[in-house]
Amino acid sequence: MKTKITLIGSGNVAHNLGLALLKAECEIVEVWSRTITNAKILADKLEANYTDNLANLNKNSDLYIIATTDNAIAKTAAKLDLGAKLIVHTSGSVEINVLEKASSNFGSFYPLQTFTKSHLTDFSSLPICIEGSTSANLNLLQELAGKLTNRVVELTSEQRQKLHLSAVFVSNFANYMQVIGEELCREQQVDFGLLKPLIEEVFEKNKHQKAIDNQTGPALRGDTFTMNKHLELLSDNKEWRELYQMISGMIQNSKSINQ
Amino acid sequence: MKTKITLIGSGNVAHNLGLALLKAECEIVEVWSRTITNAKILADKLEANYTDNLANLNKNSDLYIIATTDNAIAKTAAKLDLGAKLIVHTSGSVEINVLEKASSNFGSFYPLQTFTKSHLTDFSSLPICIEGSTSANLNLLQELAGKLTNRVVELTSEQRQKLHLSAVFVSNFANYMQVIGEELCREQQVDFGLLKPLIEEVFEKNKHQKAIDNQTGPALRGDTFTMNKHLELLSDNKEWRELYQMISGMIQNSKSINQ
Repeated sequence: MKTKITLIGSGNVAHNLGLALLKAECEIVEVWSRTITNAKILADKLEANYTDNLANLNKNSDLYIIATTDNAIAKTAAKLDLGAKLIVHTSGSVEINVLEKASSNFGSFYPLQTFTKSHLTDFSSLPICIEGSTSANLNLLQELAGKLTNRVVELTSEQRQKLHLSAVFVSNFANYMQVIGEELCREQQVDFGLLKPLIEEVFEKNKHQKAIDNQTGPALRGDTFTMNKHLELLSDNKEWRELYQMISGMIQNSKSINQ
Repeated sequence: MKTKITLIGSGNVAHNLGLALLKAECEIVEVWSRTITNAKILADKLEANYTDNLANLNKNSDLYIIATTDNAIAKTAAKLDLGAKLIVHTSGSVEINVLEKASSNFGSFYPLQTFTKSHLTDFSSLPICIEGSTSANLNLLQELAGKLTNRVVELTSEQRQKLHLSAVFVSNFANYMQVIGEELCREQQVDFGLLKPLIEEVFEKNKHQKAIDNQTGPALRGDTFTMNKHLELLSDNKEWRELYQMISGMIQNSKSINQ
């Protein structure tokens, strides 16, 4: 029998997850959104009903997935009236306990990726991190996640939160290093594309080894001559200068720890 | 006729560049190193002579390439006695003027990549940035670089220095973001491999669009709820906490500028 699922939310995660679940032969029963037109748009794609009334959701689903923004999860859960139905959220940073007042059966279903509506994500090799308030819940989530991907991992809330924080560093913050790089090139009318082979080299090496063993550059070498040149070049940008000093200091410290 | 080249230095750059030049049908006349055994090791690979005497280099070469550490370039040049021979350095961060006392013909020959002796670099699509004190010098460097790669770019010292600084952000500092990510996962016994699809997604997107248009995450969304959670998780690491706040603040500012 098809697993029946209600999606609470209509944003990027709900959108991508809903379509992936539909493709995996699940039945999407209902889509909820605060904004009824958004609920309808997603529901139409998922062949589902839709509503903007949280207290009155269809009670026939096997699983209720809260895919709202992180700060809305607790208050959304507080408005649910679903008895002992299994409720999960899709957040990386919120502990599952915020759901315990809404039901005795709760958990997390966290697909580790950045989602947009415009570019549909392939779930087949995506990690999905699960957590359940009971082993029966965990088993059900394991089975469902297994229909989407071959990388299902059980993590505690604490592990998942650190993983999510780690994701901010390796994706958002690493991306911002490129933003700075682009701006420095733009200031001098230098083609940023010149840096792409270098970026590729670092990226490729890190596929096969730890980043700590792939650290290079003036800070790691303790090359104060070059670092001072760089600080001079950043003299008109106090923030980037501070950032340069801060990260260089950390790299120098990590070297002494690593040796 | 083969271009005759003297390599001044025996480190990672000299090693990789020397082998690439040999492959490109250049003749490596001589290798200098402060340490005679290092000079010999590289010279043997390049079928060249070797010396540790800077003042007494063979004067038959067409080009003298200083591939020492950045802070040694000026003092190395000061010891040369090569008349009006063309002398270049391979540094990203040093202006070419430091060579003007050594010869009236000077320039830069900067291959933009991170080099190690253990892993030989393929130069064929590597950017080489050149600069010359005269257009004749520039032409010679252009021709030589063109034997190694199809990506030869003429840059001023100022442009090259900003490019080099940019490289530190997009390679060394971006790599360090992964170092932090690895450590956060390690603390919680979480497999860092779970983050690889996410890292790949960001990297792949940035191949085709500007990083500023690929910025995501709690800081860009102004999601203080999640940012405060993350700062809590970093409460036992003052440095990373400060770094998190600093980069998040910059991302938030870049958003307001970009809109």
